[in-house]
Amino acid sequence: MSTIHEITKAVKTDSFSMAALTNDIRNRALQTIIDTLRAHSGDIFAANQKDLAAGEEASLPQPIMKRLKFDEAKLSDVCAGMEELQKLPDPLFRTLLRRRLDNDLLLKQVTCPIGVIGVIFESRPDALVQIAALCLKSGNCAILKGGSEAAHTNRILFDLIHQAGTESGIPAGFLTLIENRADIDELLKCDDTIDLLIPRGSNAFVQYIMNNSRIPVMGHADGVCHIYVDESADISKALPVVLDAKTQYVAACNAVETLLVHKRIAEEFLPQLSARCKDAGVALRGCPRCLPLIEGIACTESDYRTEYLDYVLCVKLVDSLDEAIEHINRYGSHHTDAILTESAEAAQRFMLLVDSAGVYQNCSTRFADGFRYGFGAEVGISTGKLHARGPVGLFGLVTYKYQLSGRGQTVGDYAEGRREFHFEDLPCE
Amino acid sequence: MSTIHEITKAVKTDSFSMAALTNDIRNRALQTIIDTLRAHSGDIFAANQKDLAAGEEASLPQPIMKRLKFDEAKLSDVCAGMEELQKLPDPLFRTLLRRRLDNDLLLKQVTCPIGVIGVIFESRPDALVQIAALCLKSGNCAILKGGSEAAHTNRILFDLIHQAGTESGIPAGFLTLIENRADIDELLKCDDTIDLLIPRGSNAFVQYIMNNSRIPVMGHADGVCHIYVDESADISKALPVVLDAKTQYVAACNAVETLLVHKRIAEEFLPQLSARCKDAGVALRGCPRCLPLIEGIACTESDYRTEYLDYVLCVKLVDSLDEAIEHINRYGSHHTDAILTESAEAAQRFMLLVDSAGVYQNCSTRFADGFRYGFGAEVGISTGKLHARGPVGLFGLVTYKYQLSGRGQTVGDYAEGRREFHFEDLPCE
Repeated sequence: MSTIHEITKAVKTDSFSMAALTNDIRNRALQTIIDTLRAHSGDIFAANQKDLAAGEEASLPQPIMKRLKFDEAKLSDVCAGMEELQKLPDPLFRTLLRRRLDNDLLLKQVTCPIGVIGVIFESRPDALVQIAALCLKSGNCAILKGGSEAAHTNRILFDLIHQAGTESGIPAGFLTLIENRADIDELLKCDDTIDLLIPRGSNAFVQYIMNNSRIPVMGHADGVCHIYVDESADISKALPVVLDAKTQYVAACNAVETLLVHKRIAEEFLPQLSARCKDAGVALRGCPRCLPLIEGIACTESDYRTEYLDYVLCVKLVDSLDEAIEHINRYGSHHTDAILTESAEAAQRFMLLVDSAGVYQNCSTRFADGFRYGFGAEVGISTGKLHARGPVGLFGLVTYKYQLSGRGQTVGDYAEGRREFHFEDLPCE
Repeated sequence: MSTIHEITKAVKTDSFSMAALTNDIRNRALQTIIDTLRAHSGDIFAANQKDLAAGEEASLPQPIMKRLKFDEAKLSDVCAGMEELQKLPDPLFRTLLRRRLDNDLLLKQVTCPIGVIGVIFESRPDALVQIAALCLKSGNCAILKGGSEAAHTNRILFDLIHQAGTESGIPAGFLTLIENRADIDELLKCDDTIDLLIPRGSNAFVQYIMNNSRIPVMGHADGVCHIYVDESADISKALPVVLDAKTQYVAACNAVETLLVHKRIAEEFLPQLSARCKDAGVALRGCPRCLPLIEGIACTESDYRTEYLDYVLCVKLVDSLDEAIEHINRYGSHHTDAILTESAEAAQRFMLLVDSAGVYQNCSTRFADGFRYGFGAEVGISTGKLHARGPVGLFGLVTYKYQLSGRGQTVGDYAEGRREFHFEDLPCE
């Protein structure tokens, strides 16, 4: 039995040849995967029934049971997603820069896969298909660890995808399934073989991954998103946006958690908001100055750092736009924050100074999502500032290399003045 | 006296307003810095004399003494560099993507500074000026820790640059000098206030930084660069390229350390190389199969992983292009590797499959450098695969944010089918 490190070493070796596969081969493999999943749908649904039965037995909460379910509708969704993915332009072999350094000395900056990506995700078996497909299209090898609740479904999906991929000429290491939770800790140590980790799950889980690995991590721990209602906000727009951002899906990382309200609009706005929140079942927690204007309990400083993921909203009065910006940069998680205002200057200042992956004017924070940005699909949302930031789609899964082609040039000639560089940027294609 | 963490917190606060400074203000500050350094050149040279005297006293090696020296020539160089930097296009506020998601719902991806960058570097005082200027131009706050040998020179350069910057309207936190070596460990703990670390120094030092901080690190520990002499190489081109890559500056990270030679060209090529190396004072270490063809001692496997930074070259015979590629991906440091060949197919395969920041055909590995790539200046060379890879110039010091502007849109309308997205990419400017 191979150790996790040995397995990842073999994957690493295969990752080099992944970089040379044409878009045609990768697209054909996606098609074979679609066909194979459809041909074996009965087996997949049967495996899923086992997971669902075990979930019933274990009295899993309804939201988890719902995500665990993999039926005809989910299969259609993932197959449609893979069909869309085939149509997306190839993220590899794109020339980002083409520069003549001197006669017959040509520099190109060309996109290539990152290499080996470890994705650790929760109970949704459709995530396994999506991630495998995104990594394949971008020429990366994926090592997946799914939730144990979905073990039977994940296993059959993996077996079918792996078989379809290798039959289409993709190296066997393109997809690996890790099934034991204990193996996660082994995976975190493989910084010589894994190039990137993408954890998808609870705040504590993502934090654990970030704190226990030297492998770069892309993702987000928490999503403490803000909406700032400026003094010049249009209240008729503001109310539905705040309600949408809070209640459209409370468990989402891009749901709003803290509302900042300019003192000059508070008296008019907050009583209306309070009534709407009461109707929607949203409990309010307010700072001392706003409590007289809302129905709610007092908040403490720890509320400012809390991602409720629930029908709870913290409300704070601010004296100025700049106080709102300072609050967001201090307490927020640099995920997505919005200003509601009719003032172009206020919006511009907010969008410049708020240090978040998404800075919005007059719309719901819930728009922070790869599909809604038109990326086709996302592997996650990153609150880090390096590499990809915000919703990460196909293009966040590639890096680049510099290719330099000459005819025997030496640096000595340039360093000692016998030759000079003549930089000239050329069209990329 | 503030702790390092308190200092970095204040810098973090200033970093937000740095993001709003116009290119004009940043360029004017660069000009004021140039003028101030020139006006106080006497004081700078006097401070440098103290460092040089202390260096003599401590019998520092000549190469270090040479790098420590800051005279009229070095001052001219750094001022010329800052003048070039002023002319470079603004790396901030560039629109990378502009997409209409629906009527009146506009998404823009716009470049912005990373935030707070910690740079830890060695004895060269000119590096302090360069790095401060690059961070200022890109709207980042820089926290610098220079070598103690250059303490007097660094101090006066910092004081003058800081004064010139703040007088030009740049927030005081734009530049901070850390002077005690013990403070480095405190700095490494500031993952809530520092966004990126760039260590420049020895392999062991960079490795120490990477192993002891949760802050993302950009740079490289070692540079085990390879040249592969293919069976179809032109020997008259290959000899000068190998000699240049080895001897033009042996202490550089992009100098070649291991030479791989195809068995079918070895008998003709290696004796000539051996003679040239002998003349150039380069000691050879060879694998058993190439030892009969060269003057040198036997190498061991550990040589394949060694960055000599000296007049030493390891030579190994390989049976095929693919063996060379495998060797490089296994033992190399993913920095810069070259193939010497007249075969376009061999070059293409090498450049696709070698997993390095720089993959070259028929030129010296010593070209891996920000200046030689036409970037103007570099903060370092990254062997990581995320964010910037290879030589990192001004554009590696920025990230982006997504700006979304609407007129009150909610996600509920789209999720529940009352509205649909209509994605349309628009011109970026």
